Amino acid sequence: MTQQSTALYTAYTDLLQKAADLNNASAVLGWDQETYMPSKGADIRGRQLATLASAAHELLTSNEYGYLLKQLNALTDLGDTERRNVTLSMEDFEKNKKLSPDFVEELSRLTSECFNNWIAARKANDFSLFVPSLARMIAMKRKQADLYGYTSHPYDALLDDYEKGANVAMLDALFDKIKKQLPVLLNKIKTAPQVSEDCFHQHFPKQQQWDFGIDVLKQMGFDFEAGRQDYAEHPFTTSFSPTDVRITTRVDEHNYASMLWSCIHEGGHGLYEQGLPLAQYGLPLGSPVSLSIHESQSRLWENCIGRSMELWQYFFLKLQGYFPEQLSKTTTSDFFKAANRVEPSLIRTEADELTYHFHVMIRYEIEKALIEGSLAAEDLPAKWNELYQHYLGISPQDDKTGVLQDVHWSHGSFGYFPTYSLGSFYAAQFFDQAKQDIPGLQQQISNGELSNLLQWLREHIHQYGRRYNSEELCERITGQKLDTEFFMRYAADKYKQVYDLE
Amino acid sequence: MTQQSTALYTAYTDLLQKAADLNNASAVLGWDQETYMPSKGADIRGRQLATLASAAHELLTSNEYGYLLKQLNALTDLGDTERRNVTLSMEDFEKNKKLSPDFVEELSRLTSECFNNWIAARKANDFSLFVPSLARMIAMKRKQADLYGYTSHPYDALLDDYEKGANVAMLDALFDKIKKQLPVLLNKIKTAPQVSEDCFHQHFPKQQQWDFGIDVLKQMGFDFEAGRQDYAEHPFTTSFSPTDVRITTRVDEHNYASMLWSCIHEGGHGLYEQGLPLAQYGLPLGSPVSLSIHESQSRLWENCIGRSMELWQYFFLKLQGYFPEQLSKTTTSDFFKAANRVEPSLIRTEADELTYHFHVMIRYEIEKALIEGSLAAEDLPAKWNELYQHYLGISPQDDKTGVLQDVHWSHGSFGYFPTYSLGSFYAAQFFDQAKQDIPGLQQQISNGELSNLLQWLREHIHQYGRRYNSEELCERITGQKLDTEFFMRYAADKYKQVYDLE
Repeated sequence: MTQQSTALYTAYTDLLQKAADLNNASAVLGWDQETYMPSKGADIRGRQLATLASAAHELLTSNEYGYLLKQLNALTDLGDTERRNVTLSMEDFEKNKKLSPDFVEELSRLTSECFNNWIAARKANDFSLFVPSLARMIAMKRKQADLYGYTSHPYDALLDDYEKGANVAMLDALFDKIKKQLPVLLNKIKTAPQVSEDCFHQHFPKQQQWDFGIDVLKQMGFDFEAGRQDYAEHPFTTSFSPTDVRITTRVDEHNYASMLWSCIHEGGHGLYEQGLPLAQYGLPLGSPVSLSIHESQSRLWENCIGRSMELWQYFFLKLQGYFPEQLSKTTTSDFFKAANRVEPSLIRTEADELTYHFHVMIRYEIEKALIEGSLAAEDLPAKWNELYQHYLGISPQDDKTGVLQDVHWSHGSFGYFPTYSLGSFYAAQFFDQAKQDIPGLQQQISNGELSNLLQWLREHIHQYGRRYNSEELCERITGQKLDTEFFMRYAADKYKQVYDLE
Repeated sequence: MTQQSTALYTAYTDLLQKAADLNNASAVLGWDQETYMPSKGADIRGRQLATLASAAHELLTSNEYGYLLKQLNALTDLGDTERRNVTLSMEDFEKNKKLSPDFVEELSRLTSECFNNWIAARKANDFSLFVPSLARMIAMKRKQADLYGYTSHPYDALLDDYEKGANVAMLDALFDKIKKQLPVLLNKIKTAPQVSEDCFHQHFPKQQQWDFGIDVLKQMGFDFEAGRQDYAEHPFTTSFSPTDVRITTRVDEHNYASMLWSCIHEGGHGLYEQGLPLAQYGLPLGSPVSLSIHESQSRLWENCIGRSMELWQYFFLKLQGYFPEQLSKTTTSDFFKAANRVEPSLIRTEADELTYHFHVMIRYEIEKALIEGSLAAEDLPAKWNELYQHYLGISPQDDKTGVLQDVHWSHGSFGYFPTYSLGSFYAAQFFDQAKQDIPGLQQQISNGELSNLLQWLREHIHQYGRRYNSEELCERITGQKLDTEFFMRYAADKYKQVYDLE
């Protein structure tokens, strides 16, 4: 690169890293908001977040930045890394320009308000307290879809924020396939004797749960000098840089399952964030590919590893050490089966790996309807309950275990849910490949040796940031496009063990 | 105010509140840095803080803002509140303009680096690890003094950041008086039998210390819905708005005194921040007057109240309830005396109320010397030990209990220490007035009724923000200028009780 190219690229890097500083500062404020902030701090926190969001947006939509990108784009001597960063930044820029600073600031303020109302509504177990701000949020999101533009469905425009390239047509096709295939397996399971999960429903003191969770995270390779775990109402992972990644968990003293796999799940997200290249801080190649790839990391750890017989061959003895009274009569196999018990249930985050996808599909259908305007905010609970009845054969008795259970809509995150299912499908496909690439991986897992797997993930996924998009990454790693067959095969194998199916 | 005046004032308010949002975001990041942040996060946190500082500085030194202030200043129809805000903002603007954005960003980055090196040096108990960054900090501070400008001593320019109007001449006069008067009282005490503080040096479990601290803070009126307390290496108070004030404390399980009064001290700071008018968020009238007035609040609570016989007539029984084994043989009077034991010691934050001022005067002398260039960073420990020997008759065995004990220099806070002594002097003068204004205050305190006192502080000090400067405020409240006689009289009264002096 010539001196002039280098100077341009440095100016570009400086600007993007400043924007990252502002966005990461927002992330710190957001983390604090959901972990430690006292209740009266909410209003002012809302305006602080709005100011930060608008300052970052201003930088990323400035004419100065646009001109810089244009100049960089015209250069012929950029290296591959630089070229890819610039190309992605151009795409981001074009998209960002579509939202005015006022819109972004208003959205950020509304998000804080909406989140606080969701908290209050959950506390009061009363969806109506959430309706007014949610209705404004939906209107805002429709406007956002219009500003972004779309060819087929307004929801496509919102999806793009979380999963570039995803759209209603593609998701409909994918979910239609799952809607056909999953019930076949579920019916087989239904006819087999149900496995017990009584071992989870005892008193597990908070502190021991916490301590074991930390042990598991350490074994997974989560670096506690570059991150930490805290309590939050709704578990989430956030990152301020690969050197400071925050995961959160919740604890139910009477249901151990509630915390354990959530902890491993967030740990998987956290490992991805810690594995991103620090040298690319603030640049596209220092950022995660997409939500589905992010989710593939959490689900690979949570389900493919965290709910495997192999892992518990190693960990169950340790767990018994933490809870000798509670688990003395439980065998590793009992525990493995309990961890994989399939049963239609009301809470998405506590659902089993199979029915989980119905939770997602329900939300997906609702979001499409809300955004296209065929469903109003106040009619949400009725629609919710109807869909739960239809797909899962059950429906919630109250809002807290129904329509108020997820934080997403209060954050304005419409289009986010489908990435959870995509993540599961990618996870199964990646894990299949990892088993081929790492000789003796299953054996390693049963010895608690997880470092080769982490190394594989670092090498094939984490280190690249956004160098490849979801589809490219999947093809590079597995030699083929995303295919739900991998998930179905993984599920068939596992549940054969769990339910002694033939 | 005309419509145009109102529009101008609104634009000014918006801009200042945006700057406040950025500065308060910095405060959140700073709080996290000293409470929860994992160690590897330090580098990137440094650049994030620098970016926020420079973004706020940019707003506050922008031509747009300058022009706005000029227009506002020329208006004749501003109300008193608006006029005072504009006048103070003009003064701040003129001062801020003297530092370039590059200087501010560099200073912020150096501050993070310096803080981390101080942490490392403290951990290793080795001042030499701190020297290189401290030397750069001192050079930076000298440059800052030059940029601000001064007529007499470069240290005056730095003092002004913490205590507008304070200067070396005024402090020298004040401290000279104290240097003469204090030893007279100290000599009387020296000849009396020493009181025992053995009651503090037992095993006091962390959790109970914490719980009692929270109880005391609640009794003081600290609003835990608008604030919280966390652990930190070096206790501090920070505020993100009057509705979100964070205090911190440290706990030594083998010295109860270490936590208790630090907790009350920070609580006093916290009450001041919670009492500032929310309607003036981000504006001068929503900000504290000065560090000395801030410190007057913490010291009034810590010393005048927190170490009074009256308070412990109420609280000691409760304290015994927390620590029945440790305190069963201690009387309220023993405890009161122990809380006020005078003895030259090495750690400023654990010093008694009298010798404390020598800790301040030592730092003041050192800072003057460092800033005027007559002392180099690497010669600091020798100078430190020499001055401790001279004023207190003792000197530290290592850096941790000596020159590395305070966080201030690592933050670049030169000129801060003198405000601690000023705060004590203001506290004594204010408390004297409060006793005159609130009939039966002493009796109320011995009943644990602290709300009238808090109300008095809210009314006479907190609600005004920067409406009056330190001197004006003191004269308004007490009818006279700051006078160390109040402190000396308060001390004489108290220590007569403690040491049974005649």
